[in-house]
Amino acid sequence: MERSAQLKARLSILGERVAKNEPVITQLMTQALARPKLLSLAAGFTDNTVLPAQIVADSARQLLQDDPSQSYLQYGVNQGRPRLREQVVERLASYPGEGEIALGPKNVLISNGSQQSLYMSAQLFCDPGDIVLVEAPTYFVFLELLKGLGLRPVSMPTTASGGIDIAGLETLFADLKSKGDLDRVKLLYFMGVFANPSARSWLEEDKCALGRFVGGLGWSLPVIEDVAYRDIYYDEPWPSRTVLSLPEWAGLPAMLAGTFTKPYATGLKVGYAVSHDQDWIAHLARIKGHHDFGTANYSQALIEEAISAGSFERHLITQRAHYAEKHAIFEAALRSEGLQDLGWSWEAPVGGLLLWAKGPEGLDTSLDSEFWNACLESDVTYVPGDLCFAQGEPRNFVRLSFGVLAPDALREAVRRFVAAARRFQ
Amino acid sequence: MERSAQLKARLSILGERVAKNEPVITQLMTQALARPKLLSLAAGFTDNTVLPAQIVADSARQLLQDDPSQSYLQYGVNQGRPRLREQVVERLASYPGEGEIALGPKNVLISNGSQQSLYMSAQLFCDPGDIVLVEAPTYFVFLELLKGLGLRPVSMPTTASGGIDIAGLETLFADLKSKGDLDRVKLLYFMGVFANPSARSWLEEDKCALGRFVGGLGWSLPVIEDVAYRDIYYDEPWPSRTVLSLPEWAGLPAMLAGTFTKPYATGLKVGYAVSHDQDWIAHLARIKGHHDFGTANYSQALIEEAISAGSFERHLITQRAHYAEKHAIFEAALRSEGLQDLGWSWEAPVGGLLLWAKGPEGLDTSLDSEFWNACLESDVTYVPGDLCFAQGEPRNFVRLSFGVLAPDALREAVRRFVAAARRFQ
Repeated sequence: MERSAQLKARLSILGERVAKNEPVITQLMTQALARPKLLSLAAGFTDNTVLPAQIVADSARQLLQDDPSQSYLQYGVNQGRPRLREQVVERLASYPGEGEIALGPKNVLISNGSQQSLYMSAQLFCDPGDIVLVEAPTYFVFLELLKGLGLRPVSMPTTASGGIDIAGLETLFADLKSKGDLDRVKLLYFMGVFANPSARSWLEEDKCALGRFVGGLGWSLPVIEDVAYRDIYYDEPWPSRTVLSLPEWAGLPAMLAGTFTKPYATGLKVGYAVSHDQDWIAHLARIKGHHDFGTANYSQALIEEAISAGSFERHLITQRAHYAEKHAIFEAALRSEGLQDLGWSWEAPVGGLLLWAKGPEGLDTSLDSEFWNACLESDVTYVPGDLCFAQGEPRNFVRLSFGVLAPDALREAVRRFVAAARRFQ
Repeated sequence: MERSAQLKARLSILGERVAKNEPVITQLMTQALARPKLLSLAAGFTDNTVLPAQIVADSARQLLQDDPSQSYLQYGVNQGRPRLREQVVERLASYPGEGEIALGPKNVLISNGSQQSLYMSAQLFCDPGDIVLVEAPTYFVFLELLKGLGLRPVSMPTTASGGIDIAGLETLFADLKSKGDLDRVKLLYFMGVFANPSARSWLEEDKCALGRFVGGLGWSLPVIEDVAYRDIYYDEPWPSRTVLSLPEWAGLPAMLAGTFTKPYATGLKVGYAVSHDQDWIAHLARIKGHHDFGTANYSQALIEEAISAGSFERHLITQRAHYAEKHAIFEAALRSEGLQDLGWSWEAPVGGLLLWAKGPEGLDTSLDSEFWNACLESDVTYVPGDLCFAQGEPRNFVRLSFGVLAPDALREAVRRFVAAARRFQ
């Protein structure tokens, strides 16, 4: 206790913020650990049963054979392996409509998952107290990292169908201006494809409209499009181009954040940032030089090798089929158990590992709510939707993950969840 | 150019600092790339020829066989693999005199190399403008990360033999107090064993004296002991205990930073922070949750597996013999070429990959100095010593790395270096 008080007195401003805010995931896990029979629809993990263990072991053997210099076990370049950065560009260009992207390895930084690129970009553009515009809902870990840096997330307004509300955005900016807060707006973040938590994807026309709005501001608002789930489509790639290739975004400072390992093997943790603004990437590289001087070279080499061998793309094909099937099982279970008859609704995802469901008006699904506790008692859990809103509401949404559990466990989890929901009609 | 100016106008305070300060390593590399025949005594890499390629491939195969759940390719726990954290403690306890350390996995965080633990600790305790006490000389990448965070490194005074000068430290603190700067002192950093760049190690009596000084301050100054090179000893481990086990440090907030991969395979990049202050570790874990949500699980699993199999420790034994031999070759070459006859001097390292040499008084070895250019023209390079001093001087030191080059290349590099030095007698 004395140690604890001593240390507390020495914390920086950032340190004090960090000490104050217990991460949501810690709270979720603490409750879960107390219930060994719990089935989790909360954890956003992928499915262990389809991880590419054999491919990774093959890549390891191949590296051993092909590179007698063993340089893949040595420090790499801080910015990331040059060939892997080329592969980032090649894979981007392979998506519909994006073949013409004029990008090279200089436009790419390899980071520890895409999250590190998000964190460093927030450091690059934002001072404590600054505003970051986010979707409603948005990725809750992103909200936490913003709060850790002392930044203020502000939700962008959406239309009834969940798209960007440009008129509403104009009103929001006018409001911010009248409050003297407009010059505190430093970054805009959205997930373009199969978003976490909503599983929504942006229509190309919405991205274009946002580009025109940002272009019309008269000052350059840096924008990040996060496409971490882009490769996990069920039938076909989401057809919208990204901020890197849409003409409405030409000349605007924008960055794409993505990852090789979310759809492949999350344990390798290799993400990337891409931008036409070489300075954005060069500055991130300098910050990364301070953070850790480069993402583990071996993880990068394993990905590079699997892409070159074609096994990476082949594995993604099996992953897509697998998650399409799990999604089908999960949604069929939700329907057959009758969740929609209890006043719940959702949009069917066409990619990703998540389903975002809206409960009846007035229902409170937040941590430690009666609904939360009812689910816990039934040994099923979820991510409360309010955690995904910058302003902490509405409180009648849940994020349900179907990536981890096996089909039978998924069905059982749905039975438990719907049984709990039935008590809150 | 327009893009560049647009982006520049949007940078945070941190971003502006980062944009302004080109990393030393970039400058060194740019010059080196222009000279393909250059032999580098600058790069602090390890030797590719003794990297554990077969062991890593064996570990990969073993994981494939032993863990059918494939969980090592899944996200891990943010704080690091529990078994690996136990192994950190077990390895610490295996060092002379440290068997009694009362530490557990809660006292350990796994980070992306030890550097990330240094960066996050600076974030945890220091606000821009704060002072961090460092050795003279100190690790130049640490100086750069401090500057990136807007912190002020201040050198601690040393005795003639290079040890800590406690009387001088008292004077320094009195000076800081009189300037109103004492309450800006937030962190103290030193490398206890085979330091970068000096290759010096701390005597136990010096660590005890520093502990008594810090304990006597009446407020808790957080202290980091970095032991990244500890495992690379030539004959026997350095005998001094660390801040984790010396009685003079009991009750003081202190952290040990170390790494599994510097002496093994730098491409895996797995480091750690250890502290009796669980809060220190818990807060770092929260910051890490924001940075990247955990070090690549697979890299960690490969280390864990190699330690369990005994191949990690066996490999370290061969590494030690290898670097002991390279050191012997390097130092013999320096002597036979007659560097000491030209007014140069150095302490023979007993571990590590570096030799820290002092040139004649008045010699300037800094970047773009005449001496620097003479070496470049002779196709040999080094790290200018002034980069390793918080105040940028003295300027007559060089850091020479003998980790990378093969014996013949090492001898040739020494010939070139000494030939250049001869011109500056």
